Amino acid sequence: MTATPVTADVTEANAFARRIAGYKDRVERVLERALSLPDPGTDRLGEAMRYSVLGAGKRLRPTLVYLTGEALGAPLPQLDGPAAAVELIHVYSLVHDDLPAMDDDDLRRGRPTCHRAYDEATAILVGDALQALAFAVLAEESPSGPSAQLRLEMIRVLAAATGTSGMAGGQAVDLAAVGRKLPETAIEDMHRRKTGALIQGSVLLGALAAGVSGGAELAGLERFGADIGLAFQIQDDILDVEGDPAVLGKSTGADAAHAKPTYPSTVGLERARLRARELRDTAIGALAPLGHRSAALVQLANFIVNRAS
Amino acid sequence: MTATPVTADVTEANAFARRIAGYKDRVERVLERALSLPDPGTDRLGEAMRYSVLGAGKRLRPTLVYLTGEALGAPLPQLDGPAAAVELIHVYSLVHDDLPAMDDDDLRRGRPTCHRAYDEATAILVGDALQALAFAVLAEESPSGPSAQLRLEMIRVLAAATGTSGMAGGQAVDLAAVGRKLPETAIEDMHRRKTGALIQGSVLLGALAAGVSGGAELAGLERFGADIGLAFQIQDDILDVEGDPAVLGKSTGADAAHAKPTYPSTVGLERARLRARELRDTAIGALAPLGHRSAALVQLANFIVNRAS
Repeated sequence: MTATPVTADVTEANAFARRIAGYKDRVERVLERALSLPDPGTDRLGEAMRYSVLGAGKRLRPTLVYLTGEALGAPLPQLDGPAAAVELIHVYSLVHDDLPAMDDDDLRRGRPTCHRAYDEATAILVGDALQALAFAVLAEESPSGPSAQLRLEMIRVLAAATGTSGMAGGQAVDLAAVGRKLPETAIEDMHRRKTGALIQGSVLLGALAAGVSGGAELAGLERFGADIGLAFQIQDDILDVEGDPAVLGKSTGADAAHAKPTYPSTVGLERARLRARELRDTAIGALAPLGHRSAALVQLANFIVNRAS
Repeated sequence: MTATPVTADVTEANAFARRIAGYKDRVERVLERALSLPDPGTDRLGEAMRYSVLGAGKRLRPTLVYLTGEALGAPLPQLDGPAAAVELIHVYSLVHDDLPAMDDDDLRRGRPTCHRAYDEATAILVGDALQALAFAVLAEESPSGPSAQLRLEMIRVLAAATGTSGMAGGQAVDLAAVGRKLPETAIEDMHRRKTGALIQGSVLLGALAAGVSGGAELAGLERFGADIGLAFQIQDDILDVEGDPAVLGKSTGADAAHAKPTYPSTVGLERARLRARELRDTAIGALAPLGHRSAALVQLANFIVNRAS
C-alpha cells in the first residue's frame, strides 16, 4: 500500500463530508422557510413545530433526496421541496413515537422531547400539522420543475411510505412486538416499514424530481433504497447496544430498556453486523444501471454502515 | 296558503333527503374500498381504522363534495376520491381530538372512542394513517377525471384545511381557550379554522373535481363554504346546549363540562341563532354566480341551520 491512495481516499471522504454538510445547511433553510408562515393565534403550535424540526438531526432523508436527484441530473432547487417533505414526515413520526402512549421518551437529539418541552396535546398537533405541511410542500405550485404528473407520483410515494404500508404500519408492529421474541424475518419486515419505507421513499422522490419515473434506473434505486433503509436501522440497533453515548448524543440501551426486539437482540451482534454489510453490498449492486453516476450513493451506503453516530 | 305548495315542499324535501342518503351510501362503499387493502402484520391498526371510519357519521363533508361537484356537472365517479379524502381527514381529527390529552372523550357516534375500544397508541396511529390515506386517495392514478394540475390543487386545498391554517391550528386555539372567555371574533376565528376550513375545503374539492378552478363561481363557493362551515359549528354549539340527546345520539352539555368557550356561551343562545341564520343567508347569497345550479346547495344550507341532530 502506498501513501497516494490513502491521501486520495481522505480527500474524497472530506469532499463527500463537505457535500453532505452543504445539503444539511440547504434543507435547514428550506425547512425554516416552510415553517415561517405566520399563523396568528397558533403561536404555541408554530413554535413547537419549529422547536421539533429546526436545528438538529442528521437530515439523512433530505440528503438522500439531494444525492439521488443530483446523480440523475436534477437542479438543486427542484429537490428542495421533496427534501423538506421527507424530513417533515420523519420529524412528525419522531414527535408521535416519543409520546407517553408510545415509546415515552424524554430526550430527543439531546433536548427534551416535544411533549416534554410543551405538552402532550401540542405534541399530537405538531405531528398532525407537520404531516399536512409535508404534503402541502410537495404539492406547492412551481413554475419550473417536475410535471404535475410526476409530483402526483411523489405524493403517492410519500403517502405510501407514511401510512399503514410504511411508517405507521411499522410502528404498530413495533408496539405489538414489545416484550416478545420475533423471528428475524418479522424484525426485518418491521424495520423495512418503520424506517426503510421513508428512506426508500426519499431515494424515489429524488429520482422522480429528476424526471426518472420508471425503467431499470428506478427499479435499481428502489432496491437500493429498501436495502440501505434496512441497513440503516440495523446499524441503529447495533449502536444502541455498543455505541458511545458521547458520540451518539443520546443514551444507549434504550431498546433493551423498552424490551423491544431488535436485530442484535434477535440474531446477535455478529450476525447483525454481517447482515448490515450484506445489505450495503446488495444496495450498491442494485445501482449498476446508474453506472458512474452512482458514486456518491455508494459513498453514502458505506457511510450508513460504518457510522458511529 | 294552499295545500299545493306545502305538498310540493314535502316532496322536494323527501327527494333531497333521498339524494343525501344516496351520497352517504356511496361514500360508505368508497371508504370501505379504501380501507380494505390487506396489510399483513398490522391487522389491529387496520381494524381500528375501519372501526373509526365505517358505519357511522353524518358524512356531511362527502355530501358537500358530491352536491357541489354534481351542481357543476362532474360525473359521480370523479367525486368519489375527494369525498372519501375529506371524510378520512375528518375522522382522523375526531380520533385525535378524543384522546385523553385532548378532549378526553369516551363516546363518539354512540360507540366507545377509538382509544377506548383499542388503546391510546393505536388511536394516535389510526389518525396518522388516516391522514396519509386521505392524501393517497386524492393522488390516486385515475385515467379519466380531473387533470393532474387540478388534483395537485385539490391536495393543496386539503393540506391547507388540515394543517396550522385550518383544523390543527383551530384545535390548538381551542385547547388554549379552555376555561377562558374569548371575544366573539376570536370564537369565530377558532371555529372557522377548526371546523369551517374542512367544510369549505369539501366545497372547493367538489368544484375542482368538476374542473372549476377560478372565476366568480369558485369565489362564490369559497364564501359559501366558509359561511356554512361556521354556521354548522354554531348550530353544533347550540345543539350541545338545547338539543335532545335521544335525537343527537350523544349527551349534551359537553362544551360546558369541558369549560370550552362556545358561540352560545359567549354571546347567548338568541344571538347565536341569529348569527347562524345570518351566515346561512350570506352563504346562499354567495351562490348567485351559479344561478339555478345552486338549488341543492341552498337546501343543504337550510338543512345545516335547521337540523336537530
